[in-house]
Amino acid sequence: MIPSLDLIPGVLAGRQRDVARLITRAEAGDDECRPAMTALYQHTGKAHIIGITGVPGSGKSTLVKALATAARQMGRRIGIVAIDPSSPFSGGAIMGDRIRMNDLSGDPGVFIRSMATRGSLGGLCRAALDAVDVLDAAGYDLIIIETVGVGQDEVEVVRASHTTLVVSAPGLGDDIQAIKAGILEIADIHVVSKCDKPDAQRTIGDLKTMLMLDMPRDPNWMPPVVGTSAESGKGIDELLKTIQTHHNYLHQSGRIQDRLRMIAESRILKTAEELVRRRFVRHQAGHFIAQVAQRQLSPYQAAQQLLGE
Amino acid sequence: MIPSLDLIPGVLAGRQRDVARLITRAEAGDDECRPAMTALYQHTGKAHIIGITGVPGSGKSTLVKALATAARQMGRRIGIVAIDPSSPFSGGAIMGDRIRMNDLSGDPGVFIRSMATRGSLGGLCRAALDAVDVLDAAGYDLIIIETVGVGQDEVEVVRASHTTLVVSAPGLGDDIQAIKAGILEIADIHVVSKCDKPDAQRTIGDLKTMLMLDMPRDPNWMPPVVGTSAESGKGIDELLKTIQTHHNYLHQSGRIQDRLRMIAESRILKTAEELVRRRFVRHQAGHFIAQVAQRQLSPYQAAQQLLGE
Repeated sequence: MIPSLDLIPGVLAGRQRDVARLITRAEAGDDECRPAMTALYQHTGKAHIIGITGVPGSGKSTLVKALATAARQMGRRIGIVAIDPSSPFSGGAIMGDRIRMNDLSGDPGVFIRSMATRGSLGGLCRAALDAVDVLDAAGYDLIIIETVGVGQDEVEVVRASHTTLVVSAPGLGDDIQAIKAGILEIADIHVVSKCDKPDAQRTIGDLKTMLMLDMPRDPNWMPPVVGTSAESGKGIDELLKTIQTHHNYLHQSGRIQDRLRMIAESRILKTAEELVRRRFVRHQAGHFIAQVAQRQLSPYQAAQQLLGE
Repeated sequence: MIPSLDLIPGVLAGRQRDVARLITRAEAGDDECRPAMTALYQHTGKAHIIGITGVPGSGKSTLVKALATAARQMGRRIGIVAIDPSSPFSGGAIMGDRIRMNDLSGDPGVFIRSMATRGSLGGLCRAALDAVDVLDAAGYDLIIIETVGVGQDEVEVVRASHTTLVVSAPGLGDDIQAIKAGILEIADIHVVSKCDKPDAQRTIGDLKTMLMLDMPRDPNWMPPVVGTSAESGKGIDELLKTIQTHHNYLHQSGRIQDRLRMIAESRILKTAEELVRRRFVRHQAGHFIAQVAQRQLSPYQAAQQLLGE
């Protein structure tokens, strides 16, 4: 196996094969690739990272495809990290429609990576952001993280972006909207997809009302609401412009520093949690587990011993 | 403030006020209550812990209420830990119906505790299981953890039970079913709620077909599918019996030991993760964050330093 450090020149030159290899190793979290990821980290920080979330059925994946296609036509290099089990990028919904991504795959200016959300031993957020680092260092200047907006892990991933889009669709039921209510507050930009539908204006109006009632996350940035239709292409260019406006705002106001600190904090913690999990597996996990299961140690005592506290 | 250790006699005697106090402190994860929680831990392990999950709209909360009422009539003492934002136990869905729990509250044999799923700094699973410990030590012999089945954290909570119920409802759309597909596999018992509805038989049939195609989690326990109607009371007694059958199976087969080890493992890790988060806040978090944000340290290097590796 080629040492991960030897993949770095290829990654920095943007060679897709080396990018794919390093992402695979980073995703697994192997110790072997850690020095490479650390070396690569200083080459990151150039890309604009966009988080896109919304419940399944909100038209998120179709929107990502439309956005990526439009940005590509403007000469941007696009990286997509999809961690939505219902996304066609991630292999399609189990019972939903599968949309093929033929228009984008095969284009060397586009790199698509999907990640499983389950069975990832909790390292999902860390793995996804390591993948973003590789893409960033490889010169992809617009990186989209797509995730379904349910669950703390998914919300943490999408928050670790510079510009967060929350996608709503007209006509979804109250039950689904209730899940979504918890993620509306993280939006820098609201997107109402499928805006050709007759009840789209009501959804846009509902969102605007909600925004007026809520305290914005940043008093100087009132999240705009953009209606889009992936089918007719309506609103896609406006959305790209709005994303750029938010990017400019972050840099001109200096708020980008807050974002970068928030992302750094989340990444340190997620990585530390994964290291603790590895330490546990390596050091007497069975012994600790048996003692806690038999009530000889409390979970807190075992955790303290594990951390050497 | 009464020291937490002094609350223990009251908790062991089942005094609701002391139970409520200790749960509040345990939920916050204060260091002060740690010795008390450790002392209490050896008094746990008597209750049958039932995890109930399902997407919003599946009729989960109504089912919990019906189950608790029926079990109460059989003389069981019931503890409920609700961490479902759409549950009436947790204060009701944001946009959905609110069902009052009048029939149960006020009964000293029932203790209901709700927990927020968001903003809990990741300690949700740890906090919920600490609450279960307090209820277990206080003599509640049937403890129900209710959570919405989306997100890794929620799945981990509900897996930390002896018997896991996954609730499906007839007529929910494919989008919602797609989310749920990831949690079907954790069921020991499947419940199809609202089984008075005309399409309930189809949902029951679909589930049975899926179960025949799937490898069961335990080859000696094929998860049964029970249809219930909270309105007519249909199936509730059968469900209680099925829960008892699963309990008997776990103990007679010895599989309960696997469960207890799995739960112990999850708890040690969750507690260790929370300790790491606290250590981070206490020790130069700002310094680490700035260095990582400025690319002077990689997230991995910072995490290693935090853990003293």
